[in-house]
Order: sequence, then C-alpha cells, then structure tokens
Amino acid sequence: MKHLNYLITILLLSTSAAFSQERPREKGIIFGVLPTGSLNAITDVPGVKVGHFTKIEGDNIRTGVTAILPHGGNLFQQKVPAAIYVGNGFGKLAGVTQVQELGNIETPIILTNTLSVAAGIEGAVRYSLEQNENAQSVNAVVGETNDGYLNDIRGMHISPEEVIQTIKSAERGKVTEGNVGAGTGTVCFGWKGGIGTASRKLPESLGGYTIGVLVQTNFGGNLQIDGVAVGEEMGRYPFRDAMEKSDGSCMIVVATDAPVLERNLERMAKRAIMGLAKTGGIASNGSGDYVIAFSTAEGLRIPYSAKSGTLETDDFVRNDDMTSLFLGVIEATEEAIINSLFAAETMTGIQGHKVEQLPVDVVMNLMKKN
Amino acid sequence: MKHLNYLITILLLSTSAAFSQERPREKGIIFGVLPTGSLNAITDVPGVKVGHFTKIEGDNIRTGVTAILPHGGNLFQQKVPAAIYVGNGFGKLAGVTQVQELGNIETPIILTNTLSVAAGIEGAVRYSLEQNENAQSVNAVVGETNDGYLNDIRGMHISPEEVIQTIKSAERGKVTEGNVGAGTGTVCFGWKGGIGTASRKLPESLGGYTIGVLVQTNFGGNLQIDGVAVGEEMGRYPFRDAMEKSDGSCMIVVATDAPVLERNLERMAKRAIMGLAKTGGIASNGSGDYVIAFSTAEGLRIPYSAKSGTLETDDFVRNDDMTSLFLGVIEATEEAIINSLFAAETMTGIQGHKVEQLPVDVVMNLMKKN
Amino acid sequence: MKHLNYLITILLLSTSAAFSQERPREKGIIFGVLPTGSLNAITDVPGVKVGHFTKIEGDNIRTGVTAILPHGGNLFQQKVPAAIYVGNGFGKLAGVTQVQELGNIETPIILTNTLSVAAGIEGAVRYSLEQNENAQSVNAVVGETNDGYLNDIRGMHISPEEVIQTIKSAERGKVTEGNVGAGTGTVCFGWKGGIGTASRKLPESLGGYTIGVLVQTNFGGNLQIDGVAVGEEMGRYPFRDAMEKSDGSCMIVVATDAPVLERNLERMAKRAIMGLAKTGGIASNGSGDYVIAFSTAEGLRIPYSAKSGTLETDDFVRNDDMTSLFLGVIEATEEAIINSLFAAETMTGIQGHKVEQLPVDVVMNLMKKN
Amino acid sequence: MKHLNYLITILLLSTSAAFSQERPREKGIIFGVLPTGSLNAITDVPGVKVGHFTKIEGDNIRTGVTAILPHGGNLFQQKVPAAIYVGNGFGKLAGVTQVQELGNIETPIILTNTLSVAAGIEGAVRYSLEQNENAQSVNAVVGETNDGYLNDIRGMHISPEEVIQTIKSAERGKVTEGNVGAGTGTVCFGWKGGIGTASRKLPESLGGYTIGVLVQTNFGGNLQIDGVAVGEEMGRYPFRDAMEKSDGSCMIVVATDAPVLERNLERMAKRAIMGLAKTGGIASNGSGDYVIAFSTAEGLRIPYSAKSGTLETDDFVRNDDMTSLFLGVIEATEEAIINSLFAAETMTGIQGHKVEQLPVDVVMNLMKKN
Repeated sequence: MKHLNYLITILLLSTSAAFSQERPREKGIIFGVLPTGSLNAITDVPGVKVGHFTKIEGDNIRTGVTAILPHGGNLFQQKVPAAIYVGNGFGKLAGVTQVQELGNIETPIILTNTLSVAAGIEGAVRYSLEQNENAQSVNAVVGETNDGYLNDIRGMHISPEEVIQTIKSAERGKVTEGNVGAGTGTVCFGWKGGIGTASRKLPESLGGYTIGVLVQTNFGGNLQIDGVAVGEEMGRYPFRDAMEKSDGSCMIVVATDAPVLERNLERMAKRAIMGLAKTGGIASNGSGDYVIAFSTAEGLRIPYSAKSGTLETDDFVRNDDMTSLFLGVIEATEEAIINSLFAAETMTGIQGHKVEQLPVDVVMNLMKKN
Repeated sequence: MKHLNYLITILLLSTSAAFSQERPREKGIIFGVLPTGSLNAITDVPGVKVGHFTKIEGDNIRTGVTAILPHGGNLFQQKVPAAIYVGNGFGKLAGVTQVQELGNIETPIILTNTLSVAAGIEGAVRYSLEQNENAQSVNAVVGETNDGYLNDIRGMHISPEEVIQTIKSAERGKVTEGNVGAGTGTVCFGWKGGIGTASRKLPESLGGYTIGVLVQTNFGGNLQIDGVAVGEEMGRYPFRDAMEKSDGSCMIVVATDAPVLERNLERMAKRAIMGLAKTGGIASNGSGDYVIAFSTAEGLRIPYSAKSGTLETDDFVRNDDMTSLFLGVIEATEEAIINSLFAAETMTGIQGHKVEQLPVDVVMNLMKKN
Repeated sequence: MKHLNYLITILLLSTSAAFSQERPREKGIIFGVLPTGSLNAITDVPGVKVGHFTKIEGDNIRTGVTAILPHGGNLFQQKVPAAIYVGNGFGKLAGVTQVQELGNIETPIILTNTLSVAAGIEGAVRYSLEQNENAQSVNAVVGETNDGYLNDIRGMHISPEEVIQTIKSAERGKVTEGNVGAGTGTVCFGWKGGIGTASRKLPESLGGYTIGVLVQTNFGGNLQIDGVAVGEEMGRYPFRDAMEKSDGSCMIVVATDAPVLERNLERMAKRAIMGLAKTGGIASNGSGDYVIAFSTAEGLRIPYSAKSGTLETDDFVRNDDMTSLFLGVIEATEEAIINSLFAAETMTGIQGHKVEQLPVDVVMNLMKKN
Repeated sequence: MKHLNYLITILLLSTSAAFSQERPREKGIIFGVLPTGSLNAITDVPGVKVGHFTKIEGDNIRTGVTAILPHGGNLFQQKVPAAIYVGNGFGKLAGVTQVQELGNIETPIILTNTLSVAAGIEGAVRYSLEQNENAQSVNAVVGETNDGYLNDIRGMHISPEEVIQTIKSAERGKVTEGNVGAGTGTVCFGWKGGIGTASRKLPESLGGYTIGVLVQTNFGGNLQIDGVAVGEEMGRYPFRDAMEKSDGSCMIVVATDAPVLERNLERMAKRAIMGLAKTGGIASNGSGDYVIAFSTAEGLRIPYSAKSGTLETDDFVRNDDMTSLFLGVIEATEEAIINSLFAAETMTGIQGHKVEQLPVDVVMNLMKKN
C-alpha cells in the first residue's frame, strides 16, 4: 500500500499547493522594478521544463526530487552554455568542475536531499545512457539541501528510478511551489521552506529577454520581505531564536533565453546570491549556496559531435549589455525565495519535529504597517 | 599658491564633514541586530588606522587617497592574514594575486581613483622600501573607483608623494566620512557618494570580536535604506533615470580582531557583497566591486623572517564559529554604505557636472512613512 | 559463481602484480634528486592506508575501486586539512566545493570509473553513516577516470557495497600497482595504464617530511621517461598514432605528514600537474586531471565537534618553507605515473579491445641509448 | 652623458644578441613534434608586435621593459579575447581581475621589473589616454620578475616615458632574445636568464593555426633541456647549490591567431606551466609564474563601443578541437625558455654580482652524451 499512499499524498499536495495559496505578488508585494513573465516562473523561459517528485510516507519520510530541463530535446546531444557559482560551498553539488571547464550542461539539473546526491547522479546518468547509446561519459549536475530536520535523511529514501521518473514527468507551464519535490522537507528562516520560482521579462529596448529562477530554500538568516524586517519584528533572527538555526542551504537555478555565454552566465549566477541577500540570507558557515545558470538560446547550443573545428554560433550578449540581466536575476531570486515561503505549509516529520508555515496574515499586517 | 589653496580646502572640508551631518544611526535608523563598536567605524578594530588625503583644486580636481593600515607597526615585517574577494572584476585592484597566493598583506591598503593606481602602488612601494632597507619585492594593495564624472581623472592628479603622506597621516579614532580621501569625487545611486564606515561588536558569548568596514562608494542600483525602497520612491533607479547610471564601483575593506585565517577571511569578504546587495547595489557590468579582508590578531601575524620552518600561531576561529562574523560583515557593510551617502555633500566638478547630496530630510520622511 | 570467479581473478592479479615486475627505480631509473621513503609509496606517509578492489569478470568487466584513507581513525570525527586542484576539469570528481570551502576531507578518498561515481559516493556515505550515528551530512570525495575502452562502463558494474568493502580492506604497507583497483581498465600514453605510487622523504634539514603520491593513469600525450622521448622514439604521440588518443584523465592523490594547511596543500596539488607534465602528459581537452592533497599531521586535525570557538592547532609550515615540499610532489608524481606503466600488463576487454603493456625491455634500451 | 652611454650600450647589446648566438634548434635540439613558425617567435602570429627597452647603465642598472602588442591597431578600441592563469601568485601582475571578468585585454602587455610595475601601468595608461581622448578607465596589464640580484631594483629606474617609448618601438619580425628588455637582469636555473620566444604552426588538418610564446625567465629548479638532466649533470639543482636559489619568477605570454574565446584561452594558459615544468621549473614559493594568453583573430575582437546588444562574432574553436593548441603551447613554452638561456650572456651588476651564461658547449656535450 506504500505506493497508493504516496500517490494520494501527491494528489492532495498538488491540489493544496496549486490552489490554496496566493502568491506574494497577488497580495500586492512587488519586488523590484522589472515586470515578470506571464507565469512568473522559470518556465517563462521558452523550452524550460520542471518536474517534481514528492515523497511523503509515514511519519518519517519528507523528501523529494525536482528536475529542471533546459530544453525538451536531447540535452546530451544539444548541450547548453552554463555556469555554476559557489556562494558558500558547504554542499555536495555534483558536476561542478566539468561545467566550469567546458562551459556547458549536458543533463537535466537534479535537486534532492543531501544524502541522495548519489541517487540523483545515478538517475541522471542512466537517463542519459538510455537516450544516447554511445555515451560513455556523462556529467550529471545534482544539487541538494539538507532536509534532515523533517526527513529521515539517513534512510536515503530516493532511488535512481524515482529520479528518472521525475525527469520524464517534467513539463512546461505552471510550477508548483512550497512542500513539493526537493523542497518537500526544507526549512527556511525558521519557517517551512520549499520550492519557489519567479521570472523577469526585460523590455524590448533592453533585448526583451526572459530570466527565470527556481529555488530550493533551506537556509537561515534575518528574514526581510520586500525590505520589511519580518524576522526582527517576529523575534526570529540569528543568535536569538533556536528555531532560526541560520544554517542550511539554498540551491538556485537561473535560466534565460538571452544568448549569453558561460562567462557572463557565471556573472549572472553571482547576482542570484545578491537576491538571496535581500531576503536576509547570510550564507552561514553550514550553508551550501549554489547557483546554476544556463542559456536556452538555440544559436548557442553545443552539439555533441560536429564536423568542423569551429563552432558556428549566433551572436551573444556583450559585456556592456549584461546589467539589465543582472538586475533581473536579483529581483527574480528575491521573489522566488519569498514565493517558496508563502507557498509552503506546516509540516510534521521525523521524531515529531514540526515546522510551522510562515504566518502569512501576520506578515501581511507587518508589510502594511511598514 | 597651489598648496595653500589645497590646504584651505582640506581644512574647510574636514570641518564640514566632521561636524555638519548626523549619521543614520543617530537619526534612528538601525541596521540589523548586532551592536556597533564605540565609534561605529573600522577603527573600532584595535590597531587599525585610517588616513585621508583630499584633493579639491580649481574647477576640475575632485579626488583623493584613503589609506587603511592594519596595524601601526612595520607591516612588511609583520604581515597580516588577508584575503581578497572579487565581487565584479571591472576594476584595477593591484596586488590581488599575491594576497590570494600567500594569504597575507604587507603594505597599507590604498584607495584612490582609477587612473591613479600607479601612483598608489609607487607610493606604497616607496613607503615600504624606506622602512625596510633590504626589501626588494613589495606587494602593494591598491584599489580604486572611477571619479571621472566630477574629477579630471585623465589628469592623473595624485602623486606618489601624496600617497606616502596619506599613509603617514593615518591615525586611530574617528573616521571622516563623505567627500573625503578616495571618496572625494564619487557618485552612488545617482547621489553624491564617498567614504563610509561602520562596525559591529559580537557579544562575548560569540567571541566578543569586532568587525569594522570602510567603503568607497561609487556604484549604482536601486537604493534601499534599511529596507525602504528609497530609489523607487524617488524615481531614481536603473534603466529609468539617466542620473542613476548604475555603473561604477565599490571598494570595501573589512577588518577584524578575530583570529581568522585567510580562507575564512575570504568567506567574510564574500559576505560584504551581500551587505552591498541590501543597499540595492546590483554589481553592474561596469562595476569594480572588491572586498579586502584582514585580521589584526597578533597571534596570526606572519613575520618577514623566521628561524624555524613552522609558524608558531595562536589558535584560530573554527569554520563552525564563523557565522556570527559573517552576519557582522553584512550588517556593517550595509551601514557603512548608507553612512557614506548621509555624509556626502553636493559637489560640482569638471565640465560643471553637479552631483546632489542625498536629500536626507526627504529620505527620513520616506523612512518614517514606511 | 560470480564471486568465486572474482576472488580467483584478484588472487592471480595480486600475485602477478606484486612479484613479476621490477619497478623503474629497481631498473636504475632515478627521477629527480630527492630520496624516496622506504616503500616508495603513498603509504610511506604515516597512517595512510590504501585498499584496492579489482573487478575482472568475463570478457567485458575490467574495472575497480581504490580507496585512500588519510588515517586509520574515524575520518568524519577527525577530518584532515585538504585541498583539491583542478588541472583540467573534464571529469566528475565529487566533493570538490566543500573541500575548497572548508579546507578539509571527512571521508576516505574513492577512485573508480566515470560512470560509477554515484556508487562511490553512496559507498563512502553509507560507510560514514554507519560509523557516525548522528551524521546527516557527509561530503564524499570520489574521483574517476574513464575505463570504457576495455570495460563495459555503461554497465555500471561497481556497487556501493563493493566500495565499502574496498574501504574496509585498506591497509598500510606495500601498494599494488598496475591493473588493480581503479586502474584495472585504464590506458595511458596508448599503453596499459593503472595505479602507480611513489614517495619522497625530505632531509631533516628541510623538515624530514614525507610526501606520498598515488595515481590512476588514464591519459595521453607524448610519453617521456626520465627525460627520454620514449613516445617519439616509438612513434606513438599525439596526432600521429590512433592508439595514442591523448584523451583521458589522471587522478592524483598527494599525502604528506608535514603540517601544511589547506592553502599550501592546494599549492602542493598544483605542482603534481607539473610532475605529470614531465611524463609528457598534455592535459588534453577530454582529460579530467585532478589532484587531491591532504596532510596527516595530527596537530592539524579538525574535530567534528569542539567546545571552544577557536581551533587549537600545532604550528604549520610557513610559505617560505614550502619549496622542498613542492619539489617532492613533482618528483613523486612523475615517478608514480611511470611506475603505473611499468607495472601494468597487457589486457583484453570489451569488444575484444586489447591494450598492450609498455614494452619495458624496449624502453630500457631506449633509456640506455639516450 | 647618461643617454649617450645608454644608447651605445643598447646598440652593442642588440648587435651581440642578434648575431653571436645560435638558437638551440639551430644546434639540433628539437623540442616536441610540432613544426615551428617561420621565425620561431611570438611574432609568427600575424599582427603581434614586440618592443624591447634595455637599460644598462653604470655598475648598477640592469633592467628594462618588453612590450607585446596583440595587434597594430588601437587596442582600446579593438580589444582582444584574453585570459590570465596564475601558476604561482607570488608576483605583482597588474590588470588580472578585469581580464578575468571581461575576458579581454585593452592595452599592450608590459613586462618589467618587480618594483617598476607602477611605471609600467602609468606608461600603458598614458599611452592609451593619448590614443583615446574619451577614455577614463584603462586596464593596464603589467607583469614583472625580480632582477634585484643584478639590478639596483630599489632605485626604480624605469620611467613611464620609457614604457611608452617601448610600446611605440614595438615591431613585427625577429625578436631579440637574452639580456634584453625585461630580461636584461634576470637569472634562470642559476644561469643568466632573459627573454626567449618560440612558436608552433599546426598542420592545416588541425586548423593551421599559429601559437607564439614569449617568456621572461627568472626562475629556478632542476634544469632539464629536451629531457636531459643538465642541472643534475652540472651539480646545480635545488637545495644543493647556493647559485640555484630556485626562487624567482616566469612571465609567459601566449598568442594565437586561432579564434579562441577566453575560457579556452585560459586553458591554453594553464598548459604553458606544463611547458615550464618540462624545463625543470618547480614554481617555488617565491615564484611569480603567470601566463597571459590572447587571440588575435579579427572576428573575435571586442569593439569599445557598439550599436546593438549582441556581439557579432565569427565562429570559434570548439572544446573538442583544443588539444592540438594545448600541445603547441607546451612545446613553444619549453623551447622559448631554453632559447632565453642560450641567448643570454654573462652579466655583472650591482654589488659586483656576476651571473654566468649557460655554458652552451658543455651543455651540447651533455646533450650528445645523453
């Protein structure tokens, strides 16, 4: 009955997450000055797909997998320009050196819990081998945060098959936020964290590009929402409140359709940490804060095999025109993090640990007062 | 008569900067949760000295030099553990690779304008050679921002002698902020920028350490003061207002008496960019955003010559205990930047360019309203 | 019968590898100027243990695992200072960002094949969880090279249990070289590669420290043995001979008992690539060349939990005294690589691919002629 | 009479350096397997110019400047893709962070002595300001090695005007090697070092590209010439011979006409240190070993100002086709270093210090014997 139980949970969860919560922007909180894309999600970037696998079983299992696909084709055959920036490296992100050396990503990006990175790699590798019969070397990009406060993390409950299933279930359109996928058991600023997403659309005069961000929030600090010192107002901030452990991590995925090469993608990735800072995150010692950025621009794809020695590419964005993309990353990251907090719901897990959801009504009152 | 003119200008400037302005904290703006040191300045860190040389001459020259000395002794003989973090590398910071390779700083830290880095190096080198008769290799650490909107930067008006004079004039105690030293001609968020400083003092339970920050602010973005969207409220933000060019740079110097080695100093340095982010800085393409961090802990000094092969050192702070120092850096950097804006005064310079000071009364009204 | 087959193979292999081959030094080839340790192996560094698991089954499986343990105690509780240097990042090394951020290693170092990194991580993690009942976050360091020319690498034939078994089998003393452990199916300079090891012992006047190196050789270039252009003499060099694909990778592990902190360990790691260069390696595009360096000095161990905020450490080696350690790394790496070639034996594997062993007699004649 | 004296010295020097010495290749020493360009010099790369300024005055001054121009046009208006790799960062290289951030070089590359970096920057900046009347920010790339054993380095005898003069004197064609320009007073492996250069020309099947290298040799180690252990044979190697101090530095400039972007230029730069390793260099603690690499490909130039937001570029070399360029860098660097030793002549300088030239006849006998 394990699976039936699981399926029911998923269905319930998806329903509740999709319908019961207004997002901050719907409540009138406007982060920054740039407009969002139509869904205000990473999937506003053409081609990007997201899949969630949520595993809530019994009293102890509160974990999951989230997969982000830069495009719907064969990623190994059509790699995308990419970069990774390490905000704070207390984490187990797999695949980082090859992305930095070669400037591209060749698998779906997998997010999961800290002790399931091996399952994430094995799943992404098996998926790629299956699709590419001659492949002998696959660089899986797998990030994680530690959901061990709510989840029986030592049980290593994610299997490679579940990772493959998550990849195959990825789709375009609206992205469920909160207690879902890799965000199922996470904690953020002492409240229930989870998955969040947001986007920005530059005006045509600045290129008309879209920037999408997806976050797995599991970190701490001194919560600030659109500038309001919510953490301080509610008495929950570092070195004061045991609930606010500060430690933890944040995985951030940045996508854009702007034709940006890997060096400038790394610069975009660095700005995501600035967005995190605006929410009050402090990148504590124990935090694994990583940003993975990629461009979906078709003209910059890197084919697995090619005839000539030079790569035919379309034009790419100049250094001088990067600033608006930087601003977009900062704003979308800030909003995605807060979105994760608004969407997440109170959860009880292993050893009876309970993490409350952010009391949105209280917060909204603080927002209006300030 | 050049020199007399100059001296008069300095005196006037020092007077006005020192006495006419309340700092944000005196006006009731409290950044973060940690207490400040007694001066709320980088000089709260025992031993640290600061010197300013301000050069305002005629209609065109609006520049200067700021020197930060980690301790009052012979720095070349008693180097300090240090690290440099590059937030955005569109800048000319000298000395970076040796600091990263060897983990220490052996000269005063010099800040000046972009085209006077050579003068900064020559000054710091000549100062060190003078003090150390056998020295044949000196790694000068010289940072800069571009004051060319107000200053005749192409005139390269700083001389090595003026740099040496700045070093020798450095002292402990209160640090003048605003249009002074290397901040004389800078612009920040479209308003007059300059030098700012702040500090944090950890409670004894967290080690009792002091963190001091000094900034040279010359950058742009979407100004936020203690969370209040001042830039947006006043209609001055990126891609909207020509005054807010966004470009520019920020030099940040972080000092601490905590016994922290270079790897963890680099981690502290990274957090300063998070403090900058909280003021609305976006690290635009043209920004040279650098953080230089050092520890003044006597037990970690690196003697130029030593008998044995191993370095006798005192204990140093563990990874696990770094988080409160990170928080201190973020808070002090945010406050130092805003301090620079409150202290700076309207200035007219080359080609009649005029940069208004931040209208503090208007800002304070916005602060109260929000 | 799978296991019996395997055990027999191992026994045969161990016998042949241990007894049939003279090492280059025994044949009179002296690399560099420093003396070796007593075994001329990484295990000359006090406390270091090595385990090999060799998997040769049927026509297709030619792979394995090698585990290097910095000390025989609980590594998670007593971490060692460590660094990783990326010579060329076309590889899947797991654990790199946490080592770089925190400056330590907390698990055995695992080497295996490219597509078995997930198994390597899972094995190292399960081993650590078993030893440490409260551990919820484990940073496994797992390196790899691609043995797909001889091995059915897509079959992913290494299991986490085999990794754990390798760790538990690790021992001090002589280290088997050649077609063993992670070197079972590797190819180097177009000849059969494998595991190699070597060491250097500094004179007491330079500290008396030991440097040990272990390599997994699977790379290409223009083979040079103690300066003699063996590749060119035998007509096997890049862009000439299809056998010499040049691509491939080299994992290098550097151990020392010198009290060296992580920054200087990284500098030691960089020198290992210089040793590789002296063998004719060219770090081709497809090469994953990584160096993992650690210090076994007891006074520098990092306890998992500690009472005070500062780490009590013994003295560590000054920058100024690092040069002899650098020389030791270069020499030992060069020798370890050549040792792997002398020990490896002709192997036939998947699809009937056959890789010849280096013709030692021919080589020795070339050595004498030159 | 100072200037007359100087001019005479230069003339004499140029004569002797240009005519009296055979290069190693002319003596039959062939490094590697790839053919050279027609001059076997960095100027084989189309457009690259080199200028030397040699300052030998009285008993004490033995220094100079070398300028490398990626092309003959206005570099500030037409920047070239570039990268810098830090082999060992005990040096004062100016300009590194901006090159790494923006991926380009916008001034001539200047090499000089350690304490004249300020003069180098000032010269390169003044030269650029003169050419570009609106320029307000110039990133000068200035490298150095320490010639203080022969030169009165503390006297800081290089002026910015001499740097400008060097830039303006740069020309195409043959490059003088040995005691010239920035190599005037350098020491290498305990013998007289200096400037060296070499090149490689890839076969058309591999793109037909040219790779050129220029070095300023001032480092130590265990000299090996085309594999022959010359240092050991002559009893001059680290920790044995006081003459072989091992310390010192090597500046390496790599040019290519291959259309290579900055990430792959950095990878090429890393290979230069592998070429250095093959000469016996050990990158000692005190060594500042830096590699500056750029592409002269016209299709990849970065205009200072451009209309559209995307950069129109030609195709660039794929990762998969970089290996032959790597091999070219390794071979040309090795040869350029040895070329510098063969060209340099015995010199006496400050405090009567005398550094012998490499005894070429003795070396050639060793080469034949081995």
